[in-house]
Amino acid sequence: MARLSERLGDLRASPVRAMLAASQQPEMISFAGGLPDADSFSDLDIPAPPRHLLQYGPSEGEADLRAHMAGELRALGIDTEADRVLILSGSQQGIDLVAKLAIDRGTGLAVESPSYLAALQVFRFFGASFQVLDRTDPAAGWAASPPAVAYVTPTFQNPTGSCWTAAERAGLAAACAAHEVILFEDDPYRDLVYDPCDRRPVCAGADGSWIHQGSFSKTVAPGLRLGFLTASPDLFPHLLALKQAADLHTNRFAQWSVLQILQHPGRAQRMARVVSAYRRKRDLFAEALDRELGGLARWEVPVGGLFFWVRLPASVDVEALHRRALARGVLFTPGDHFLTAPDPSAGGAMRLNFSAAPPDRAAEGLAILGALIREG
Amino acid sequence: MARLSERLGDLRASPVRAMLAASQQPEMISFAGGLPDADSFSDLDIPAPPRHLLQYGPSEGEADLRAHMAGELRALGIDTEADRVLILSGSQQGIDLVAKLAIDRGTGLAVESPSYLAALQVFRFFGASFQVLDRTDPAAGWAASPPAVAYVTPTFQNPTGSCWTAAERAGLAAACAAHEVILFEDDPYRDLVYDPCDRRPVCAGADGSWIHQGSFSKTVAPGLRLGFLTASPDLFPHLLALKQAADLHTNRFAQWSVLQILQHPGRAQRMARVVSAYRRKRDLFAEALDRELGGLARWEVPVGGLFFWVRLPASVDVEALHRRALARGVLFTPGDHFLTAPDPSAGGAMRLNFSAAPPDRAAEGLAILGALIREG
Repeated sequence: MARLSERLGDLRASPVRAMLAASQQPEMISFAGGLPDADSFSDLDIPAPPRHLLQYGPSEGEADLRAHMAGELRALGIDTEADRVLILSGSQQGIDLVAKLAIDRGTGLAVESPSYLAALQVFRFFGASFQVLDRTDPAAGWAASPPAVAYVTPTFQNPTGSCWTAAERAGLAAACAAHEVILFEDDPYRDLVYDPCDRRPVCAGADGSWIHQGSFSKTVAPGLRLGFLTASPDLFPHLLALKQAADLHTNRFAQWSVLQILQHPGRAQRMARVVSAYRRKRDLFAEALDRELGGLARWEVPVGGLFFWVRLPASVDVEALHRRALARGVLFTPGDHFLTAPDPSAGGAMRLNFSAAPPDRAAEGLAILGALIREG
Repeated sequence: MARLSERLGDLRASPVRAMLAASQQPEMISFAGGLPDADSFSDLDIPAPPRHLLQYGPSEGEADLRAHMAGELRALGIDTEADRVLILSGSQQGIDLVAKLAIDRGTGLAVESPSYLAALQVFRFFGASFQVLDRTDPAAGWAASPPAVAYVTPTFQNPTGSCWTAAERAGLAAACAAHEVILFEDDPYRDLVYDPCDRRPVCAGADGSWIHQGSFSKTVAPGLRLGFLTASPDLFPHLLALKQAADLHTNRFAQWSVLQILQHPGRAQRMARVVSAYRRKRDLFAEALDRELGGLARWEVPVGGLFFWVRLPASVDVEALHRRALARGVLFTPGDHFLTAPDPSAGGAMRLNFSAAPPDRAAEGLAILGALIREG
């Protein structure tokens, strides 16, 4: 028997991967995963990149893409420069790098519960001891036992879709600075905004040590696997060294292609069209939810992002519902996957992605879920 | 002050990254890094990939590329199938995944010294305790204290360029099986072969737990960041879960493009041309070495790969030589970077890459190194 690492015992079977695989079956109505609508990129004009990019490149990323992103980040109020932008092989990689940066076995990490499941998975794998973060009182308990890192997705939180208020953002930034906690803001959904709300990055007001990361998976295309981060000057050199150790550097064709798309004169108009299409899908999904699950479950209509978080009464066995739905060709993500520690006494939840399935198929899927819940 | 992980103290400043950056200065004569000759891919015909690959894809990699690689690996004698091929974001990523799989702080890892420096860096970062592997007696000391993993690059070893004999390969496979040591064979240089030699993968004869990985960086192009691994059935599911946690999946355009190149009818002829060009560069480099460093240093002409390993007498201060050479516009990698534990009493060494610099520039650079060594 091979001797495996202690931490491997913490690597749970990956729900994301399994769901990505299941959701690629064409007959499946998938509310799982976070698949963007393929219509949002099917007409992208991706020109042929120059051949010199076939050679090894810098671990930091391509200079012109870094400069462009520094400009976008500064426009959001984040104090950065091109030299402190790191291009990632998707923003999932940023989570791996931050875990390596700060997490040993038993290290405290503050996180909302529910939170992005693949982040919990990585932090758990590195041995993090979770402290549940209350956004209305983030520093509760920190005086006695400050975590090393606070991980948050304040803008269209995954899975709940909620958006932190300005006061909550300022409170977290101040708490992190006061307690010397690394503020790690994961921000992949920022541009998918459907209603007015406060979106100023928490890192825009941060003193101390902070990392802000974003993704091109929702605004350009996920198959290119491209993300980016910026960080306070004390952390950036470590993150860069960790990136080099992880995969030397990110695919250069993808970096070049995404920069062309970002700089295209039609970019703003294109994003407006994409957002408008998502807003319409969200609205149709909300209508179908009202129709099919009204009175059976509770939810709030998200102001941005790709998900509805649907709470179910404690009488519903969510794991059983998941299995029965799958047998009927409907896939969703059980809420427990997003919790730091599942609580059987609380009601369960489902995360429903509204962007991947066409509206008529989504309505069909929700009708099936409603019927299954009623059947009990 | 941010609280950083214990293991971060083991993350040395990255010589690879620094050298990649320095080697991109056009006036520099670089023998550092492992840059392939850009001529070997400058004329590659990379067609435009289909748009549906812009969506998220499977963590395992694209099915058709996995099937193709399974065929190539079986042709080498490795017992595998498409379901046990994992596409990587470059083979550096495979090292990170294997470290996560098996290395805790203090875990024993057997490795030749010298070995690939960025592998040592990753294993060190995860806390490995190195046991120096003697290829003529690999199990020495294993009865008392077997390592969890043996990491080797038997085919055109990096940095020495040497190729293990059939007996050495069989000996390692048997030792790993007998002592339940995970055999990790890193095989990026296999196809860059200039003289007859035994290249049957060690994993082709392996019982027990094993991982074999390869790269497209030397045979297609490094900027695409594409590698692959296969593993014994007990290890593969863990490696797949770790891949998903690291970056969800690898860039799909790169996977598609590389498969087109591998399946191109002109592929074999093209590789023969590339190898022949490298062979000629190696020969010219060997001649220049004889001329400029004859009597000053010792080396063997490598039968494959991209490097000469040049041993210097103990009287030469290699770090000082490195600084002085850099000031004269010549870059090489000091041998100490490849050692598990530098030994000041032994003579030093330089790793010289012969593939990146044009032959006349390489000769110029070697003349400068010769002059600097003579100056003392």
